[in-house]
Amino acid sequence: MTKESNEGLTAKKEENFSEWYQQLIIKSDLADYTSVSGCMVFKPKSWMIWEKIRDACDKEFKKQEIKNVYFPLFIPEKLLTKEEEHVKGFAPEVAWVTHAGNKKLNERLAIRPTSEAIIYDSYSKWIRSHNDLPLKLNQWSNVVRWEFNNPVPFFRTREFIFNEGHTVFATEKEALKEANIIKKIYEKVVENLMALPGIYGRKTQKEKFAGAVFSEKIHYMTPGGKVIEGPCFHHDGQNFAKAYDIKFSNKLGEKEYAWQNTWAISTRMLGTMFTIHSDNKGLIIPPRLAEEKLVIVPILFEETKKQILNETKKIKKLLKKFNPILDLREDVSPGWKYNEWELKGIPLRIELGPRDLETKSVMVIKRNDNKKISIKIKNLQKEIPKLLEQIQLELFDKAKEILTSSYAKTEDKKELIKLVKNKKMVMIPLCNSEKCEEKLKTETSGIKTLFIDPKNKPVKNKKCLICNKQADYWVYAGKSY
Amino acid sequence: MTKESNEGLTAKKEENFSEWYQQLIIKSDLADYTSVSGCMVFKPKSWMIWEKIRDACDKEFKKQEIKNVYFPLFIPEKLLTKEEEHVKGFAPEVAWVTHAGNKKLNERLAIRPTSEAIIYDSYSKWIRSHNDLPLKLNQWSNVVRWEFNNPVPFFRTREFIFNEGHTVFATEKEALKEANIIKKIYEKVVENLMALPGIYGRKTQKEKFAGAVFSEKIHYMTPGGKVIEGPCFHHDGQNFAKAYDIKFSNKLGEKEYAWQNTWAISTRMLGTMFTIHSDNKGLIIPPRLAEEKLVIVPILFEETKKQILNETKKIKKLLKKFNPILDLREDVSPGWKYNEWELKGIPLRIELGPRDLETKSVMVIKRNDNKKISIKIKNLQKEIPKLLEQIQLELFDKAKEILTSSYAKTEDKKELIKLVKNKKMVMIPLCNSEKCEEKLKTETSGIKTLFIDPKNKPVKNKKCLICNKQADYWVYAGKSY
Repeated sequence: MTKESNEGLTAKKEENFSEWYQQLIIKSDLADYTSVSGCMVFKPKSWMIWEKIRDACDKEFKKQEIKNVYFPLFIPEKLLTKEEEHVKGFAPEVAWVTHAGNKKLNERLAIRPTSEAIIYDSYSKWIRSHNDLPLKLNQWSNVVRWEFNNPVPFFRTREFIFNEGHTVFATEKEALKEANIIKKIYEKVVENLMALPGIYGRKTQKEKFAGAVFSEKIHYMTPGGKVIEGPCFHHDGQNFAKAYDIKFSNKLGEKEYAWQNTWAISTRMLGTMFTIHSDNKGLIIPPRLAEEKLVIVPILFEETKKQILNETKKIKKLLKKFNPILDLREDVSPGWKYNEWELKGIPLRIELGPRDLETKSVMVIKRNDNKKISIKIKNLQKEIPKLLEQIQLELFDKAKEILTSSYAKTEDKKELIKLVKNKKMVMIPLCNSEKCEEKLKTETSGIKTLFIDPKNKPVKNKKCLICNKQADYWVYAGKSY
Repeated sequence: MTKESNEGLTAKKEENFSEWYQQLIIKSDLADYTSVSGCMVFKPKSWMIWEKIRDACDKEFKKQEIKNVYFPLFIPEKLLTKEEEHVKGFAPEVAWVTHAGNKKLNERLAIRPTSEAIIYDSYSKWIRSHNDLPLKLNQWSNVVRWEFNNPVPFFRTREFIFNEGHTVFATEKEALKEANIIKKIYEKVVENLMALPGIYGRKTQKEKFAGAVFSEKIHYMTPGGKVIEGPCFHHDGQNFAKAYDIKFSNKLGEKEYAWQNTWAISTRMLGTMFTIHSDNKGLIIPPRLAEEKLVIVPILFEETKKQILNETKKIKKLLKKFNPILDLREDVSPGWKYNEWELKGIPLRIELGPRDLETKSVMVIKRNDNKKISIKIKNLQKEIPKLLEQIQLELFDKAKEILTSSYAKTEDKKELIKLVKNKKMVMIPLCNSEKCEEKLKTETSGIKTLFIDPKNKPVKNKKCLICNKQADYWVYAGKSY
């Protein structure tokens, strides 16, 4: 811990979000830039959180009898290009391996931007009969998508980590049924651990995954009014089955193409969480994900120093299971320490000074709202878990408030622009032409469709906000990362 | 499950090891080849085992306050080439990314063959003062080393998975102390879960890790007399610190180079385990690593069919925690099923036929030695875990027997060749010249040094087996994968 690290954030979240975010990530020790342009290091603090998210999802996947596998990092070019939409979507971002040692390869290899191509090549060999279905496999892997835009830690890096579920069914019905199962798993993990409520909705054809029949995602609203896409579910129909020749013989012995889904949660969610909860003092993490849930800071004066130190050590022992930090440094002031641990996002701070000693109590400060509560030392073991849970719920509620207060609706383009400027996610009537979506973007300086109204409200007699012809659906539109 | 899959192994382990191994891996459903030359799929059965090994090691690492991180997959060429020995060792096997989308990159990027170069570049920024040390980080990652030899699943694939621990200390003494800690972690996990005893020893300078001061590994002996290298520990001294400028200011404010170690266990260990335990009937896995610990096969005759089926279903429930398979297929015979589950390596088989019904017992067959034990149904819950543990220990003992019976010693080259042909690992006196090691290999058609005698027996008056000058140490030599 060097003294420099105490320097707090100099940018404000509401004034210069991008600068604030970059400072937050670096100064609170979540990540660092590297010599590889566009790639970052996950430092222990962010990686531990990812491991918790991964393990929680994985446990749920396993309950669904989904099994983990590991497929190669490389995809031969001829495999990648089999599904036309898929390759169009990914080719511009593919990193290519062309040489090994001193030798030029006969065929260049893509580093997986996602693994459909390599996995489905094997599926076409493995799947023969209806007895082989459903086949429900998943892998946790690193993928590379060569972003040419400015990299942003967690959100936009050339390499990121995700799970990719690849399931195969004998019928469309079974495949479609999985959407809700997967959605619930992701929702539960993200709500319970990351304290983030989201809204699940289907993307328009323009915004769907390259190769899918339809894509559905969970969307999260930031205080700045920008929407971030979270975990996703793609129903592929028989698109990939036809491209990769995944056929099975049904009970009558006839060959049929299989039905497929893919679904994912990525390390991008970490950025979403840091963004939504944190403030101008620094990082805020939900206590259930915090490795170190509290820090103990003794307030030292000469006369009481020995007693105070003794008492804080006792408290550390008492609260061992919360993995407390006891900050005994004497070369920095308590205030300096407060700033540092606020920056680093420790959920609770316990202060113990001479007066507390007299009353056999400590002052406990909540990171999320700075509220101070005096607690008797003998009650700490009982009260600390309650406070941690309270913070967890308060973070969820605050995020929920941001989300629910962001809904708006209009049928007018000017009004739409105004509402989005006011940080809203706006329901508008639209036709399903991709041209109109394109126009929407250009005519509003970047407002895009987010998802189709999950309630599917009727659009009878509603005109498309762009072309004025009959609308096909209500669509939420807004700004997104 | 297709009928083809019942075809057993046609090659014999002791006659044509290589063919036997390839058949074993494919037919028992551990892995599959892919369209990417030299790369394989880890199917659920092998990946689950790897997850257990990974988690067991990770738990131990965390007890040592080693934290997990994740560094980029890519290493810019200029970073990789900083440590001279290191780059010489890895450059011939590096896969190079030269293009992204349609663009040629300004600098080609190596896919990590190991991550020293990219990690130490960050360490040189992060480490400033003695307060930053020790720094103990680890990552679980996929690495690529472009083998030009024939690929062998698990053993020699162009991509594999490992942990890479990268620790930094202020003093050589502390760094050296870590060797024993790491060795014990790997030994414990491999012995307890994989049922594999090994022998820990230091490599000669010729065989050490590229860039290290010395390398130590755990070695495993196969029934065929070939030695396989397992988990490794490398002490880097200040080699990388000097190459990557990793300096800290000590308590006196003076700058010093740091001391470093790296250590790893890889998916290669899975191949080691499958090789050592399995037999001509197929896979044998230690019960502690088996996902499904037993299979129940009913022996059906018309009159007793209903009762037998009822009883097997009850037994399945009774033994639920061992994740039993109940094989109710009626289109294949019991004998056919026995073969299949032996091939697939289920540790215990329970047979229930009409006569067992009368005695309220079942026949339990141990996969490792085919022993049959009649057990009263009411005693199953008590007896099954005992049998599983017994198999675990028997596998360990058998592997131990192979290892201990393989030690030999000679000072004569002809005798050495004879002993190695007889599947021995032979202690010989050698001088430390790399030329003599090279000669050893060429003059004995491939016998190489494995590790320096761990007991460091004196070599006074012993002559190097190759050059006849004074020997520097006793070295174990033999054949290795």
